[in-house]
Amino acid sequence: MGIVVQKYGGSSLADAAAIKRVARRIVETKKQGNDVVVAVSAMGDTTDELLDLAGGVSPLPPAREMDMLLTAGERISMALVAMAIADLGYEARSFTGSQAGVITDSVHGKAKIIDVTPGRISSALEDGHIVIVAGFQGVSQDTKEITTLGRGGTDTTAVALAAALQADVCEIYTDVDGVFSADPRIVPAAHKLDKVSFEEMLELAASGAKILHLRCVEYGRRYNIPIHVRSSFSQLEGTWVVEDPTEGNTMEQAIIAGVAHDRSEAKITVVGVPDKVGEAARIFTALADAQINIDMIVQNVSAASTNLTDISFTLPGTDAQTAMATLQKLQDQVGFERLLFNDKVGKLSLVGAGMRSNPGITAQFFGALAEAGVNIDMISTSEIRISVVVAEDDVERAVRAAHTAFDLDASEVEAVVYGGTGR
Amino acid sequence: MGIVVQKYGGSSLADAAAIKRVARRIVETKKQGNDVVVAVSAMGDTTDELLDLAGGVSPLPPAREMDMLLTAGERISMALVAMAIADLGYEARSFTGSQAGVITDSVHGKAKIIDVTPGRISSALEDGHIVIVAGFQGVSQDTKEITTLGRGGTDTTAVALAAALQADVCEIYTDVDGVFSADPRIVPAAHKLDKVSFEEMLELAASGAKILHLRCVEYGRRYNIPIHVRSSFSQLEGTWVVEDPTEGNTMEQAIIAGVAHDRSEAKITVVGVPDKVGEAARIFTALADAQINIDMIVQNVSAASTNLTDISFTLPGTDAQTAMATLQKLQDQVGFERLLFNDKVGKLSLVGAGMRSNPGITAQFFGALAEAGVNIDMISTSEIRISVVVAEDDVERAVRAAHTAFDLDASEVEAVVYGGTGR
Repeated sequence: MGIVVQKYGGSSLADAAAIKRVARRIVETKKQGNDVVVAVSAMGDTTDELLDLAGGVSPLPPAREMDMLLTAGERISMALVAMAIADLGYEARSFTGSQAGVITDSVHGKAKIIDVTPGRISSALEDGHIVIVAGFQGVSQDTKEITTLGRGGTDTTAVALAAALQADVCEIYTDVDGVFSADPRIVPAAHKLDKVSFEEMLELAASGAKILHLRCVEYGRRYNIPIHVRSSFSQLEGTWVVEDPTEGNTMEQAIIAGVAHDRSEAKITVVGVPDKVGEAARIFTALADAQINIDMIVQNVSAASTNLTDISFTLPGTDAQTAMATLQKLQDQVGFERLLFNDKVGKLSLVGAGMRSNPGITAQFFGALAEAGVNIDMISTSEIRISVVVAEDDVERAVRAAHTAFDLDASEVEAVVYGGTGR
Repeated sequence: MGIVVQKYGGSSLADAAAIKRVARRIVETKKQGNDVVVAVSAMGDTTDELLDLAGGVSPLPPAREMDMLLTAGERISMALVAMAIADLGYEARSFTGSQAGVITDSVHGKAKIIDVTPGRISSALEDGHIVIVAGFQGVSQDTKEITTLGRGGTDTTAVALAAALQADVCEIYTDVDGVFSADPRIVPAAHKLDKVSFEEMLELAASGAKILHLRCVEYGRRYNIPIHVRSSFSQLEGTWVVEDPTEGNTMEQAIIAGVAHDRSEAKITVVGVPDKVGEAARIFTALADAQINIDMIVQNVSAASTNLTDISFTLPGTDAQTAMATLQKLQDQVGFERLLFNDKVGKLSLVGAGMRSNPGITAQFFGALAEAGVNIDMISTSEIRISVVVAEDDVERAVRAAHTAFDLDASEVEAVVYGGTGR
């Protein structure tokens, strides 16, 4: 008997029937002798509906009030899940983020969890209750204001609760079977990963794999909480995200875990920046002050004749307008020539812990892209990841080429299980 | 410059346009130099939609979770009102009942406010902010659980805040022009009351006039907070509910304030109860234990031959099923013969402080009903009220007859103002 933390997303809670199905699964876990704590997102389209309501009264609503509004969504779903559990004859108690002791900083709209004080949860568990917690939300430490963790934040709520309660596992229920070696909509032969390491999952999440919230994986790694990503529509095992995927395994771990891609970024080039100390710092300080997250940065070699250089960087497409406005205000100060903007770009990332001990990976990756006729615009690497920026139209071809080049295409047996070639 | 508390109900907050109109009215009040605190209900049909959702997952949801669910409604509307105010260039802060310091007992679904500790509201007012508070909700003193005050509870929230903040006035905005001498849908000649006393308003509210929540009026009377009931769709003065309506008035106060009616009650008769000490107490103790509010009670004179009596009482129709079940269980203990049930009844109440000094009112009232051919089934009176139970089909005729008999029909001048005879 241990503590199991589960997370159900909006697509698993779309309507009354879905909520009842989730309640049955929760009760099953309780019946197996576990203490169960569940973090829930808002039902189906609730968050979008609330955003529409806000848009109807104000084009730019204050972030504090937006958090107050959006947190109503999880409040609704957690109460309904608790009711559905009660209807099955089990006692359930729902708690808001604040009641559950999810303490955050005070950045509305993308707060970070800084502590979890689960006193009320522990008491409820001691009383034999199933606990339902509103995901995605918390209360700020200093100002006692309601905050939200940003889209996908319920993953983080779940794993933070798991860490605070020293749970045995954090199960993330979703509408797919697990983490795949590539997006199955692009690569039909993509296969489900049985196990993946925290660091690989971090790189995949940071590179556009939307299945797990980045901060959730960071939390899991920091507190070493095994995360089990699985489908709420089946009983199949999903993907385990753990410290060491080779532990207890007789098979060798694959060199490459998977290929992630991201079409949501845009690229800005600052043309003709005087190549002297401090100019780049000035540009990126201004962008940081505007709360813009920069992804990849490339600086050209300065042209000897002019002593001018170009700086290109990628950033989330949603931040692009703010970034352009911020840079335009800076033009006189920095003295650059002009700005170029391109949102028809895509990023492709090859992730695998095996890269460390296999020096030929980069060459093989670039070779596969070249063979597929894909031009590389920017490159960035980490110890276990190679990312390239390519034209948006080339993304799908590039993902398929890389997936095949590294022998990631599912074997026929796996293809049957995961809906493949029709055998 | 003083503190004005305003309350807006769901019909005043039906959609984005309505919320923006409410925001403009709030800002107008602020511009006049007042500190403004606003209690809001859930938007339009939100509460019904949430009840439907609950019904979809459980036929009998736990009251605690029902409160958790329903309180999402005010959370949504308060955030939207705050956003709409911000959009007009004014600073607004929304607070949940719990954040606003609305402390209640722990009876989920119909909690009573036992204290208001408005520290956060006062700080926000000192900072120059407009404060928006979620009506209808609070937090229980002992268990720190979220509670609701029952339907119409936002009226009570508003006047409780007004009392705690020592506000100058509590304005209750609604979709009608004020309190009328009778329901204008039944009596087209009904006129709006300019002023009415707390005790008259209490009797009217208790007798079925739905315009103000009973506990709201009790609170207003206890702390002597003038309540101004008015329309959110016009700038007209509405009805002032005050301690002494004759104060500063040159005109004499009307003897009768108005006629209220209520078709939501049912009548139960316990036939053949042994006429001995303690039998009636046993019946009503059992009903009280089942949380059923009894309204009127009539006990027949015992028949000398059998020493048996009949006890009739009225109660809210929604409680009737529980009451019948409770009494059936009691049959063997008490030894009564049988139960009669009738939900085709209506109650009619004549209310006016002038009754005290005008002994002929009862006779005149019963005479008017007799002339209209209305049979009286039960009678109950207070110092300033006479209520009768009649057949449901007779209610409208009885209301009109009483209204005319006491000269309450609007004069032609008033009829023009309040939508009358077309002059």
